[in-house]
Amino acid sequence: MKKKAIFYHAGCPVCVTAEQVLVAALDPNRFDVEIVHLGEDRGRLPEAEQAGVNSVPALVVDGQVFHINYGASLSELKQQTASS
Amino acid sequence: MKKKAIFYHAGCPVCVTAEQVLVAALDPNRFDVEIVHLGEDRGRLPEAEQAGVNSVPALVVDGQVFHINYGASLSELKQQTASS
Repeated sequence: MKKKAIFYHAGCPVCVTAEQVLVAALDPNRFDVEIVHLGEDRGRLPEAEQAGVNSVPALVVDGQVFHINYGASLSELKQQTASS
Repeated sequence: MKKKAIFYHAGCPVCVTAEQVLVAALDPNRFDVEIVHLGEDRGRLPEAEQAGVNSVPALVVDGQVFHINYGASLSELKQQTASS
């Protein structure tokens, strides 16, 4: 059975590079990768926060959170949610 | 032909987790991964710096640098080199 990896992003240039290069480099035979755009799919924000995501882009594999470079903080994304 | 990915680290706990979970998740059919311990292989410090590595752990794929969480800065590693 494949393991699940979740990539959280917000459409930022740093996020796009991470998705196209690093996430795309994961082994498709061992991982099912789900891509979550936290700016558009705001209902996933609490789940990301609970997983330990502090900023995007972030990749969660095996319950481990990997913050990859830095695009935006989760609190910024939450503020955008609140004000829109 | 496989692409080369280089993982720079310094043996820190954050580095070990990144290596065991994220680097291990890369597709072995498409990538040859080289693991470089910058604390032990100090001659590789200039190369890492030139590639754009600011901190470890970092993974360089396709000329793109991905800083993964944060273990230590490259300048700290360089200072250790100078003082030992």
